[in-house]
Amino acid sequence: MTIGIVGLGLIGGSMAKAIKNRTSHTVFGCDINAETMTMARISGAIDGELNPDTLPQCDVVLLSIFPHATIEWVKSNAAIIAKGAIVVDLCGVKRLMVEALNPIAQENGFIYVGGHPMAGLERSGFTAAKEDLYVGASMIVTPNEHTGVTVLETLKALFLDLGFANLTFSTPEEHDRIISYTSQLAHIASSAYVKSPEAQQRRGFSAGSFRDMTRVARLDEKMWTELFMADNDFLTEELELYIGHLQQYLVALKDKDAPAMEALLKEGRELKATAGGN
Amino acid sequence: MTIGIVGLGLIGGSMAKAIKNRTSHTVFGCDINAETMTMARISGAIDGELNPDTLPQCDVVLLSIFPHATIEWVKSNAAIIAKGAIVVDLCGVKRLMVEALNPIAQENGFIYVGGHPMAGLERSGFTAAKEDLYVGASMIVTPNEHTGVTVLETLKALFLDLGFANLTFSTPEEHDRIISYTSQLAHIASSAYVKSPEAQQRRGFSAGSFRDMTRVARLDEKMWTELFMADNDFLTEELELYIGHLQQYLVALKDKDAPAMEALLKEGRELKATAGGN
Repeated sequence: MTIGIVGLGLIGGSMAKAIKNRTSHTVFGCDINAETMTMARISGAIDGELNPDTLPQCDVVLLSIFPHATIEWVKSNAAIIAKGAIVVDLCGVKRLMVEALNPIAQENGFIYVGGHPMAGLERSGFTAAKEDLYVGASMIVTPNEHTGVTVLETLKALFLDLGFANLTFSTPEEHDRIISYTSQLAHIASSAYVKSPEAQQRRGFSAGSFRDMTRVARLDEKMWTELFMADNDFLTEELELYIGHLQQYLVALKDKDAPAMEALLKEGRELKATAGGN
Repeated sequence: MTIGIVGLGLIGGSMAKAIKNRTSHTVFGCDINAETMTMARISGAIDGELNPDTLPQCDVVLLSIFPHATIEWVKSNAAIIAKGAIVVDLCGVKRLMVEALNPIAQENGFIYVGGHPMAGLERSGFTAAKEDLYVGASMIVTPNEHTGVTVLETLKALFLDLGFANLTFSTPEEHDRIISYTSQLAHIASSAYVKSPEAQQRRGFSAGSFRDMTRVARLDEKMWTELFMADNDFLTEELELYIGHLQQYLVALKDKDAPAMEALLKEGRELKATAGGN
């Protein structure tokens, strides 16, 4: 196949590297950063530039730029995407994307499927991208009732070839609800955590728990703001729930109520065991 | 030297394994669990049992049981600890320990120094203990004005031999203040985080940030309750500060205020950069 990739940052760059390392597909890529384009060409992550000449040749187009920029790109290029081509956006919110892109796809005769690779790093850009980023990860896709079986088979074969452990099918609503908790809330929790003045004095006084709790405070604030605003409703609910739970521990501390604290911690331990994930 | 270790769980068991693997010191150990004692003997982590016959032979005694149990153990055994022996407790709070143990040490003619190895795991017990747990970690010690230089030199040599990267000197107050943030608050934040119902539905919808955020929810609630109660004042302050910071993000979400959210995230990213730690 011929695959186009729009945006060669951590996500798109890793897709390009994975495709060139693990399959025999042709990759055309583009990025607004000229240096990234040079690096992508020299490193062999792309075979050439994705432009108005090469885009119509693409069987699959992966979109790995910010949500609103993705929508703008599809609007501008819809007319020259091949009829029957499969377009997958890789943004971290899905209701916004599906609502905007489904009508454009239908009008222009290409197929749109929402996607979200469950992998990331606290670093960004093509230099952080790596060919094994997706190994063992889950690839979420949000097909709808019009999505044909052959389209899903094509995407499944592609993503499994790139190292993904499985495809997770979801609706845009379910995706946005669960992701607001597993990913977005974690970024807020981490960002808020590092704001204690003690964080600046912690050297020699910390181990793994501080590191893990604050790792994703290193984030791209423009991208995450866009994601948070697009998932505002679910994320607000989750953040209120989290603050409410934290307040229970605060009450136990203020009351010096050891049995209450022990019960709260026991409940958390048990829920962690059933939730899994290390 | 001859070293006694009281409690052969994750911390004490790792001390025993590190000493036997990395030095030629003799180790006597004890644990209330008979199976742990058998495993410790069979695996070579101890040379023999720490008991009223062997305790008086010890040059150094490491105490790695819960805080109040540590105080009780020292009270019961103070009379048979060798004069001039160095006793180091490894509990996660230091004001409580120093206030209780310093007078007993002075009355009985042995030397007491508070300690806290900055290493841990979300698993516990002798089976989780490993000889390289302390490699690259910081060892906090809380000497006082009476602690002789030779005592500190002895401890420094011992702990560096076990793989620690350095000794961090602190007062009990400074230790308890910073640790309430870097370690204790992280355990509350993690325990509360896993309480969203979405945690039970996250499979296929999560990657590193969920895992890191909830890792230490797997904790021993009895031990952490004891630590939290002993550090109640500092921990209450830190938890209130954390909830206050989270509420700023909540306001930005509710107001759909993208510039405010971006500013909050940017501030967090910058503070994480200066705080360090990955």
